[in-house]
Amino acid sequence: MEKPLKVLHASLNNRVMVELRGGRGYHGTLDGYDVPHMNLVLKNTDEIINNETVAKHNTIVLRGDNIIYVSP
Amino acid sequence: MEKPLKVLHASLNNRVMVELRGGRGYHGTLDGYDVPHMNLVLKNTDEIINNETVAKHNTIVLRGDNIIYVSP
Amino acid sequence: MEKPLKVLHASLNNRVMVELRGGRGYHGTLDGYDVPHMNLVLKNTDEIINNETVAKHNTIVLRGDNIIYVSP
Amino acid sequence: MEKPLKVLHASLNNRVMVELRGGRGYHGTLDGYDVPHMNLVLKNTDEIINNETVAKHNTIVLRGDNIIYVSP
Amino acid sequence: MEKPLKVLHASLNNRVMVELRGGRGYHGTLDGYDVPHMNLVLKNTDEIINNETVAKHNTIVLRGDNIIYVSP
Amino acid sequence: MEKPLKVLHASLNNRVMVELRGGRGYHGTLDGYDVPHMNLVLKNTDEIINNETVAKHNTIVLRGDNIIYVSP
Amino acid sequence: MEKPLKVLHASLNNRVMVELRGGRGYHGTLDGYDVPHMNLVLKNTDEIINNETVAKHNTIVLRGDNIIYVSP
Repeated sequence: MEKPLKVLHASLNNRVMVELRGGRGYHGTLDGYDVPHMNLVLKNTDEIINNETVAKHNTIVLRGDNIIYVSP
Repeated sequence: MEKPLKVLHASLNNRVMVELRGGRGYHGTLDGYDVPHMNLVLKNTDEIINNETVAKHNTIVLRGDNIIYVSP
Repeated sequence: MEKPLKVLHASLNNRVMVELRGGRGYHGTLDGYDVPHMNLVLKNTDEIINNETVAKHNTIVLRGDNIIYVSP
Repeated sequence: MEKPLKVLHASLNNRVMVELRGGRGYHGTLDGYDVPHMNLVLKNTDEIINNETVAKHNTIVLRGDNIIYVSP
Repeated sequence: MEKPLKVLHASLNNRVMVELRGGRGYHGTLDGYDVPHMNLVLKNTDEIINNETVAKHNTIVLRGDNIIYVSP
Repeated sequence: MEKPLKVLHASLNNRVMVELRGGRGYHGTLDGYDVPHMNLVLKNTDEIINNETVAKHNTIVLRGDNIIYVSP
Repeated sequence: MEKPLKVLHASLNNRVMVELRGGRGYHGTLDGYDVPHMNLVLKNTDEIINNETVAKHNTIVLRGDNIIYVSP
């Protein structure tokens, strides 16, 4: 058994795909998270809306509230 | 009587169907969960949107907030 | 006076109808619940969307968040 | 001054109208409630959707989350 | 400085307008409230939907969740 | 660094613009707030819906839940 | 590893882009935040709705609830 936070922790410094509500995706390197909110810090992130990369962010703080999934 | 978390625990390492709000389904092997958020870890998961498999994920962390049901 | 949880408890092993937001109904045998979330476990459940049975589930864990009512 | 829960308590065994989000009304005899969720138990209830009685329930547990008002 | 709850308290026995989400207004005499939910009890209330009085309630318990404002 | 509540406190007795979800704006004199809900009391307030002043309120209690921003 | 709040803290006095739900963006200098709500204070802020600058705010308090991301 792997707890969700353990999976996040093991994904630090790896590329992850974060899907948010509203058709938003963020593909970047996981640099941090907090507990219990699951707010995330990503580096070198592509922001993908409706399957199109619309922006790049060196650093981005994603609020955990809107997360549907994190896929390492 | 079986408590919901006991059912989740008994489903570890089994295939489950997770239905989320927004017409999203995740069919995979339950590898972990947390309490009380019901965030889940699935392995070898088919992501199904509007009855179509749109992606596969080796590992995925699903946020519990959006869950409608888990069906073992 | 009957408290809501007492009604749920008295309904264990009985058929109940659970209405969720989004036009979803679940008709099954109540096998468990938790407090205070009101997550439910149902057995032998018909999943009814817009008045049509779309699936059957041997066991299903319904998240309490989406419940409109439980009718024993 | 009458606190909301005191009004609910005084309405036990009386007919009440409960309006939920989504155009749903429940007209029945208040048989119970809990604190702080305001989940309700009604008996002999007419379920009214868009001003039409669509079902009758001997006993129903309404989740407090969706309540707009209770009118004794 | 007047705290919100002090304003509510000073409005007891006075006519107030309560605006809820979904285009609903309730114009009545404030008879009670609770903390921290801001559930309200109104007396002799006109229920106003889309600027039309659709019902009158001798007593009504409004759930605080849906309140946009209370205007004494 | 100025904490959000310090900015609100410094705005007491000043005119502020409060934007709520749903295209609602309230332009008035800040007379109070509470912690942690951020419920507000405004005086002499113009209620602005879709850029039109639709009402004036001597005193209004705005529930913090719906606030998008407060601009002093 | 950088925790989300550490990234916010390091962004004080720098320009940040804050994306809110509902197609709203706020581009300004981060002047404060609180924990755990993530309410923010921005200075010299452009308010951007659907990619158009619709207003400027000397000081603005953004409620954390609606935040999708903060990009330093």
